[in-house]
Amino acid sequence: MTLTDIASRTYNHGWRLDPIIRSLLDTDFYKLLMLQMIRRFHPDVHVTFSLINRSRHIRLGDLVDEGELRAQLDHAREIRFSKKELIWLAGNSFYGKTQMFTPDFIAWLADFQLPAYELKRVDGQYELHFHGNWTHSTMWEVPALAIINELRARRVMNGQKRFSLDVLYARAKAKMWSKVERLQQLPELRMSDFGTRRRHGFLWQRWCVEALKEGLGPCFTGSSNVLLAMDSDLEAIGTNAHELPMVLAALAENDEDMLEAPYRVLDEWRRVYGGNLLIALPDAFGTGDFLRRAPDWVADWTGFRPDSAPPIQAGEEIMAWWKARGRDPREKLLVFSDGLDVAAIEQVYHHFNGKVRMAFGWGTDLTNDLVGCSPDGSRALDPMSLVCKVTRVNGRPAVKLSDNPEKASGEASEVARYRRVFGVAGA
Amino acid sequence: MTLTDIASRTYNHGWRLDPIIRSLLDTDFYKLLMLQMIRRFHPDVHVTFSLINRSRHIRLGDLVDEGELRAQLDHAREIRFSKKELIWLAGNSFYGKTQMFTPDFIAWLADFQLPAYELKRVDGQYELHFHGNWTHSTMWEVPALAIINELRARRVMNGQKRFSLDVLYARAKAKMWSKVERLQQLPELRMSDFGTRRRHGFLWQRWCVEALKEGLGPCFTGSSNVLLAMDSDLEAIGTNAHELPMVLAALAENDEDMLEAPYRVLDEWRRVYGGNLLIALPDAFGTGDFLRRAPDWVADWTGFRPDSAPPIQAGEEIMAWWKARGRDPREKLLVFSDGLDVAAIEQVYHHFNGKVRMAFGWGTDLTNDLVGCSPDGSRALDPMSLVCKVTRVNGRPAVKLSDNPEKASGEASEVARYRRVFGVAGA
Repeated sequence: MTLTDIASRTYNHGWRLDPIIRSLLDTDFYKLLMLQMIRRFHPDVHVTFSLINRSRHIRLGDLVDEGELRAQLDHAREIRFSKKELIWLAGNSFYGKTQMFTPDFIAWLADFQLPAYELKRVDGQYELHFHGNWTHSTMWEVPALAIINELRARRVMNGQKRFSLDVLYARAKAKMWSKVERLQQLPELRMSDFGTRRRHGFLWQRWCVEALKEGLGPCFTGSSNVLLAMDSDLEAIGTNAHELPMVLAALAENDEDMLEAPYRVLDEWRRVYGGNLLIALPDAFGTGDFLRRAPDWVADWTGFRPDSAPPIQAGEEIMAWWKARGRDPREKLLVFSDGLDVAAIEQVYHHFNGKVRMAFGWGTDLTNDLVGCSPDGSRALDPMSLVCKVTRVNGRPAVKLSDNPEKASGEASEVARYRRVFGVAGA
Repeated sequence: MTLTDIASRTYNHGWRLDPIIRSLLDTDFYKLLMLQMIRRFHPDVHVTFSLINRSRHIRLGDLVDEGELRAQLDHAREIRFSKKELIWLAGNSFYGKTQMFTPDFIAWLADFQLPAYELKRVDGQYELHFHGNWTHSTMWEVPALAIINELRARRVMNGQKRFSLDVLYARAKAKMWSKVERLQQLPELRMSDFGTRRRHGFLWQRWCVEALKEGLGPCFTGSSNVLLAMDSDLEAIGTNAHELPMVLAALAENDEDMLEAPYRVLDEWRRVYGGNLLIALPDAFGTGDFLRRAPDWVADWTGFRPDSAPPIQAGEEIMAWWKARGRDPREKLLVFSDGLDVAAIEQVYHHFNGKVRMAFGWGTDLTNDLVGCSPDGSRALDPMSLVCKVTRVNGRPAVKLSDNPEKASGEASEVARYRRVFGVAGA
């Protein structure tokens, strides 16, 4: 006799919405760290985040139903931090430090709500903007990306036969586990999950995180996803992002002020955080220029997260800079997080092993690699390059140059102005 | 909120027994075909079937708990054909023929029960015998093997972490599907599942059958498993087995009688069945000898199932025999079913394609290939070579020679006697 839970079955086949975001903690940890700093130093800055689809050939406006997208975004706006979540944020230690978040900040989070969004379908793509105080619009970045990525995947899988889905996920699991087995060959590895924004879906990210926990043991250092970190007793991992220098540069009143912006970010950061959180992101306006102009105290920081230059080249450049400043790279940390796959991780690991401490933040290739797994050979689930970036700051345009010209963002005339001010070494 | 069906969970964690055999139809179709013939021509012959573990290095007596084994065998003895099952046997058509089973036979099945068993643990192995009328002991072969194979697999997996099992089956599914994709390249393929007795487990066999149905479409012609055929609206596939010539040879009163036994089997068979069921199994006492002595009407049969010689060699030998008797092999059928894997299927297919009709019965490599799938690298789930054979007939020893000396069974002195009578061409 088969027992069927009639209530479950009825609910599962008729729910109003299968929410993609179910908690405000389903975001990257660095968002909370940055938020606390933003609220302290820049509570009144007005910032717009905007969706940018770098995979233009993928016509999101046709693939993702506008009504479904609005329903998911609206649902995310209904979510508040729960008491349990706030107690955990207040009581847990992060990076070995208790009370990382002040009681005042925790109390403020209790009333937090994601701000309104502006959505239009234009020419087969979505224009999606989040306006508001920086303290609010910043929190849309990760959930917005996760929602769109998962809605796209759901649409591809919608109506597929049960068997096809079974083979799809069996293959994806087998593929994932073969990666774990390769990584098990790197005994000093320090690996964490950075894959929330680009994930195939929440449940799949959770499975991949479990796989790393099971397969890598202590070499798996944690997840950037705060909800998964809380639910699975993992370390929450993350420091800061490009939005900080982008906003401060956009606020600058003149060229000199703009050149100072990246270091002002670090100065504000070190006034709030210390120790292992002192990881600088050097590439917002070109790593070479950043290092050349950096004050000496930046070399006292724990490390860098090169995020757009080829990793070995970027790491060597930073190590040479440390040595020139009399610091021993073996006491420093490089965090690699840009477009890593297992082959890149192995290559970087072997190159730097013994020369510098390393950590890896594994993103898309961890949480959205179903490439080659569809039984019908379809590539419709291949990951896409979708970002959500600061585009305007108090009405002014915002710019990122980065070390990779393809990752530059902002209006062309502004990009040219920034290149002139910061130099073109990075490009 | 999570809905848990409390009754299901409680039942699943505390059941008295998770039965391996849940239906008397969970057996090979040819058992029922043979049973009807046995009952008609040999209702009073007493036959013992015995378990033979050809993988002696696997100490089943240590791996499989005797209490669990008895509980499973006892449970199988409690099962009767259900009304639904008998109605299906009576009303379904098999091999295009309605009323394959007579009303008298169906009525007799309604009271059928598996007979008692004799079980002993000796030196790390099980001695397991099924005594009784041939009409009853014959029906133990498939369920006994399926029970022992699945109990062994369960014991290996018992206590493994949920995640390990998840990866194990994900890999097994991915492996299986890659085989399906290779078989999709063979457009004229006729493939059926012959894997009940050697299966990893019932649920896994069902998944593999679903995979073939989904992936091969009309090239998947059905399953030898009657229960799966009924539940999935597949054709039930199978004809006859070595037990027929083995028993009739053992009953022979002299050498001449014994030499006639294989053809007496076929003669009885054709009096009950016709058409596509006229498939002869030539290798019980050596294929060469069988063909040489065969009466001409055997060449009118639909085909042969060579089951122990190398398939290409056996097929060529049979085709030459057909040609010598003036028959066109392109109108004949060869059924290959001995130890097939995908590479062998491809090789045989390409060799014979266009020369003779072919069908493949895929066994162990279909339903019990978890080789290389365990995350811990264990080989404890690798399939074993376990058979359940006729060992005694009315008190006399039974013998199989086959074309492969390793598959010979019976007491040594009897094997020698059979070799003398039938000739040694087959070996």
